Amino acid sequence: MTVTRRHTDVETAVLAAARAAKEAQPALARLHRSQKDALLLAMADALVERSTEIVEANAHDLAAADASGMEAGLRDRLALSEERVAAIAQQLRDAAALPDPVGEVVRGGLLDNGLELRQVRVPMGVIGMVYEARPNVTVDAAGLSLKAGSAVVLRGGSAALHSNTALIAVLRSVLAAQGLPEDLVIGIDEHGRDGVDVLMRARGLVDLLIPRGGAGLIRRVVENSLVPVIETGTGNTHVFVDASADLEQAAAIVHNAKTQRVGVCNSLETLLVHADVAERALPAIAAGLVEAGVRIHADEQAGEILAAAGVASEPATEEDWDTEYLALEIAVRVVEDLDAALEHIRAWSTGHTESILTADLRSQQRFLTEVDSAVVMANASTRFSDGGEFGFGAEIGISTQKLHARGPMGLTEITATKWIVVGQGHVRP
Amino acid sequence: MTVTRRHTDVETAVLAAARAAKEAQPALARLHRSQKDALLLAMADALVERSTEIVEANAHDLAAADASGMEAGLRDRLALSEERVAAIAQQLRDAAALPDPVGEVVRGGLLDNGLELRQVRVPMGVIGMVYEARPNVTVDAAGLSLKAGSAVVLRGGSAALHSNTALIAVLRSVLAAQGLPEDLVIGIDEHGRDGVDVLMRARGLVDLLIPRGGAGLIRRVVENSLVPVIETGTGNTHVFVDASADLEQAAAIVHNAKTQRVGVCNSLETLLVHADVAERALPAIAAGLVEAGVRIHADEQAGEILAAAGVASEPATEEDWDTEYLALEIAVRVVEDLDAALEHIRAWSTGHTESILTADLRSQQRFLTEVDSAVVMANASTRFSDGGEFGFGAEIGISTQKLHARGPMGLTEITATKWIVVGQGHVRP
Repeated sequence: MTVTRRHTDVETAVLAAARAAKEAQPALARLHRSQKDALLLAMADALVERSTEIVEANAHDLAAADASGMEAGLRDRLALSEERVAAIAQQLRDAAALPDPVGEVVRGGLLDNGLELRQVRVPMGVIGMVYEARPNVTVDAAGLSLKAGSAVVLRGGSAALHSNTALIAVLRSVLAAQGLPEDLVIGIDEHGRDGVDVLMRARGLVDLLIPRGGAGLIRRVVENSLVPVIETGTGNTHVFVDASADLEQAAAIVHNAKTQRVGVCNSLETLLVHADVAERALPAIAAGLVEAGVRIHADEQAGEILAAAGVASEPATEEDWDTEYLALEIAVRVVEDLDAALEHIRAWSTGHTESILTADLRSQQRFLTEVDSAVVMANASTRFSDGGEFGFGAEIGISTQKLHARGPMGLTEITATKWIVVGQGHVRP
Repeated sequence: MTVTRRHTDVETAVLAAARAAKEAQPALARLHRSQKDALLLAMADALVERSTEIVEANAHDLAAADASGMEAGLRDRLALSEERVAAIAQQLRDAAALPDPVGEVVRGGLLDNGLELRQVRVPMGVIGMVYEARPNVTVDAAGLSLKAGSAVVLRGGSAALHSNTALIAVLRSVLAAQGLPEDLVIGIDEHGRDGVDVLMRARGLVDLLIPRGGAGLIRRVVENSLVPVIETGTGNTHVFVDASADLEQAAAIVHNAKTQRVGVCNSLETLLVHADVAERALPAIAAGLVEAGVRIHADEQAGEILAAAGVASEPATEEDWDTEYLALEIAVRVVEDLDAALEHIRAWSTGHTESILTADLRSQQRFLTEVDSAVVMANASTRFSDGGEFGFGAEIGISTQKLHARGPMGLTEITATKWIVVGQGHVRP
């Protein structure tokens, strides 16, 4: 790689930001829960008080988005109003209401020799967040990181530069007003994608990097990061309708999983139906989906059943099995039995969330045990695969990796632990 | 990188090994604890029965080590005797006696909407271990991986090639005898360092890579691995003798931490002594160390105190603060106070283990809270920073990273979790 002048400047600036965050973090680590909560509540108040200036900054981003013809869904996620700023502030209040994970004794006891041993939760240190042009994530990530005792380096999408700058300025002013280092929250949006490259290599300064976004961003971070990463992956999720499923329930769950919210990682992408009930189950399920405007990509057998029932579908290809549509589209396949369903899932799942709909205890047991995904379900919509639904109060993302955190991540998942050993002059025999 | 013929062969062979391990693993995952324990006990018996052939194989490695002038500490870690093989077999029996981490419910309960939610421990899948020429690690790693439900791909140091090959052959013969796939335990020593390069990139086949060894090996793995890594770091450990320390206890603990076993990561490397007690503490501590043959690298103040007491020392440089001797050498520094000790540790520690010797509650509290290491101790020898001592039964390594596992790693640390959600037709409102 040619080191250009510009790249060198970015490297210097981003490493300085990460170092500043690292040096600021001990001041946060010394705070007790009540002080951290007071900080978050003050930040919420400040966001509401200064919402006019935040919305004005957002208007600059929106104008640029309109000029570049940004897609409607993305524009909606970028847009702020006074109401949305109030909702963002509420996320901080929600975070304040959550228990503090720091200090929790995970395990502990007295060893045979009288040594006192305990494993306790401690702050991670410095967390790097790389995400898309969603200003609410800026505040949410900052609030959760601070509550968990960590400083945070934020890199949102360039399209949200003005909004993020305004939001971060408010958060930093509250830190300063409370006598805390402003650098507990640092944005590096101004340094663009080069800044992410530097952040990924800031080993020793950044303790954890969490990429949230498209598959390309996540792959780039996973393949290039020297900093430990939690992969928040794509959700090519599956529902398997077993032969014994309650078919009315199945139609309702599939409808909910596909259409209750489109464009999120826990929405349904591929429906697998046991051959024994395909003729009875598919027409009703498909009718509901079509009514909601869902395009159906069906394998040959499913396509024939649907055609006989007067429901239109397109032929599914391997690409459909591999696609996270994030849209009103679904892939449908008829499988011979549970084993065939498990095989399809093993071949195509991204390991996010899969659900079996069944009344058979042995099928349920095998599915829950043998499917190697972050979240496995029985008789429930995949849309429940969510930190909020799990009762975490907040969600940093959904991890599809096995290391450290798997599935929805709340405050606990962004802490580390350490071991404390207290003796009375103990030496090892 | 030029792809040579040889490299291609290595790549094919190592990827085939990883794939074989991945395909073998479900057979292990289906076993209950009693079956896994029987396997480990049979392996222990087989090792003892065949210890003569193992020691013979080891003799080849030792002869080569002697010819190449291997350093004494390393040679000690390489050497096997019938007694040491028996001790290695005992570690398998200890592992068999441990609770099975798989299936443990970590968290769980009923959500407000009646959904049943639980987080359970599941096998990691395939674990890759890259380590030094320590044959006992081969058996330890295999035994713990199997108990935790994972297949294991082993790459020990080339200097232990004959020993490892003999040990792995015994383990595989027991797998075959019990009707299990031999490929649950695979060695790739024959492919040398190129094999490690391939293993690091086997994303999707290997779920976790654990490097144990010198700083160079660990850096190479951390910087190049696409597979998630747990860094088992070097142990530049510190003991701080506070002003209030019981000096007799201090001398005993320092002696134990430095000399009870040399060449292991939890042995002491740098001694920090509070200036207020340096003149009283250092002569007695140093006398014991010198008697044990320890070379002392002292800062100016410590050197003067030692000289006045008739104890020889060499001047310490920054390199000494940065060195993990793994030998009968120690760095000694007199520090003004607790803050200076904390500052030295912050600057030079590898985050492995540090211990304060003190009678002052506030000093202990600050040290345990502010030192950001995997294991922090008070009034105990750093040699207790060990999975066996912690009651884990055996130890895979000591993690110095914050993600997933930190400190000594036992069975729990090499499992993953998944979330199980059971509903009765639940859809998200």
